Amino acid sequence: MNKPTILVTNDDGINAEGLRYLISIMRKIGNVVVVASERSMSATGHAITVRSPLRLEKTTEEKGCKEYKCNGTPVDCVKLGEQIVIRKKPDLLVSGVNHGSNASINVIYSGTMAAVLEGCISGIPSIGFSLLDCNGNADFSECGSFIKEISEKVLETGLPDGICLNVNIPAISSEEIKGTKICRQSKAKWVEGFDERKDPHSKDYFWLTGRFEKLDLEADTDQWALDNNYVSVVPMHYDFTAHRAIDTLKKWQLNGQSI
Amino acid sequence: MNKPTILVTNDDGINAEGLRYLISIMRKIGNVVVVASERSMSATGHAITVRSPLRLEKTTEEKGCKEYKCNGTPVDCVKLGEQIVIRKKPDLLVSGVNHGSNASINVIYSGTMAAVLEGCISGIPSIGFSLLDCNGNADFSECGSFIKEISEKVLETGLPDGICLNVNIPAISSEEIKGTKICRQSKAKWVEGFDERKDPHSKDYFWLTGRFEKLDLEADTDQWALDNNYVSVVPMHYDFTAHRAIDTLKKWQLNGQSI
Repeated sequence: MNKPTILVTNDDGINAEGLRYLISIMRKIGNVVVVASERSMSATGHAITVRSPLRLEKTTEEKGCKEYKCNGTPVDCVKLGEQIVIRKKPDLLVSGVNHGSNASINVIYSGTMAAVLEGCISGIPSIGFSLLDCNGNADFSECGSFIKEISEKVLETGLPDGICLNVNIPAISSEEIKGTKICRQSKAKWVEGFDERKDPHSKDYFWLTGRFEKLDLEADTDQWALDNNYVSVVPMHYDFTAHRAIDTLKKWQLNGQSI
Repeated sequence: MNKPTILVTNDDGINAEGLRYLISIMRKIGNVVVVASERSMSATGHAITVRSPLRLEKTTEEKGCKEYKCNGTPVDCVKLGEQIVIRKKPDLLVSGVNHGSNASINVIYSGTMAAVLEGCISGIPSIGFSLLDCNGNADFSECGSFIKEISEKVLETGLPDGICLNVNIPAISSEEIKGTKICRQSKAKWVEGFDERKDPHSKDYFWLTGRFEKLDLEADTDQWALDNNYVSVVPMHYDFTAHRAIDTLKKWQLNGQSI
């Protein structure tokens, strides 16, 4: 049987430890093509590069693994990977391993998960992996069995149409992890502030700071799973419609003709 | 009665015609605070600025209208507007008027709509407006009655909890518009290619190009509404969970313990 072609990307950049670890796991499963940004693109959301040209450079070629760095965002990396490097649809897209949680509301800011949604839009079975440790030197070695199992399962059975996965892993030993839980995205928000400073020329500048506030601790959420030592798996889609609100809004009288 | 405080932003930058037009409409309704990027931030998605400091500069102060430009993304503008400029929750956030459609899958790449989702996360009633004309000199003058009516309706009745609105307006005369339709986000994708070029030093570079492909022409979608001369209004939320897929995935045997 031919080995599957696996496109690997992330948002922490080509040199991030989490990416290097994910590559090592994917090489056990298939032929790996890495396209990742040359620098950190954390918190770039679903940005794409439309006003400047993209550059792509091969950095490594070994049996079963080719690596490219580019000057774009994680979503650009997915597009370049499929259309310029592989030039066909890969069998699987994996993004990460992110340094830090992409559970709950974090998903909306995440470049790692934007790459996954982009793969999903393009019809590629796509999974994002994140470890709940923000440190550059986080220890990813306990994640491997979960990443390999979920990736192989997706390769074997596929994913429902229009669905991708957001997988978050507690930063504890694999023995302490109680299992894998299929969840919904919990409600939370960043309660933000700005650190207001003055530069040497007495001009104001601002650093964004924040504190994560959990608003939903139900047992079917990703946040509950993680707080209780489970790996969380949230099926995601790119339909942002709040279907539950459609009937309410239809009662509005807009321009005498709302229908 | 006190006039409502309205935070206005966009992703085409502080000088964009669409923003200038939106400000003119909002000044008829309330006290306006504008925080917008000093340059175009189109297609920046939900990016935030975490690795560099933000700058904010007041550019205009008139009775009922203050304007600030900043070096950040549309989502940064919302955060700065609420926390540094207004220093409390505004009564309404409006974003746009975008030069070009944010219907269907465009919503995921849009900085205009990212600002709206950010307002929604923060608990501000939030609306994005887009005109289906990408030109810098698009004629916004036919949009005003729809923008004013929807904004006043939201100020009057509020929005359901966790819901914001994505409003798209056909680029035709207001007489030709048949009414306002509450819709769901239609399925579509950008079929992309890269324009591959060589620079004067014989190095490759790539321009992202694309063609919008409609995959769903049902009469309850935003794309149908727009194609049939209606203003489309899609209620949106920031729960990306594909709830329909949860039961399917729960049947997977993961690590013997999937629950």
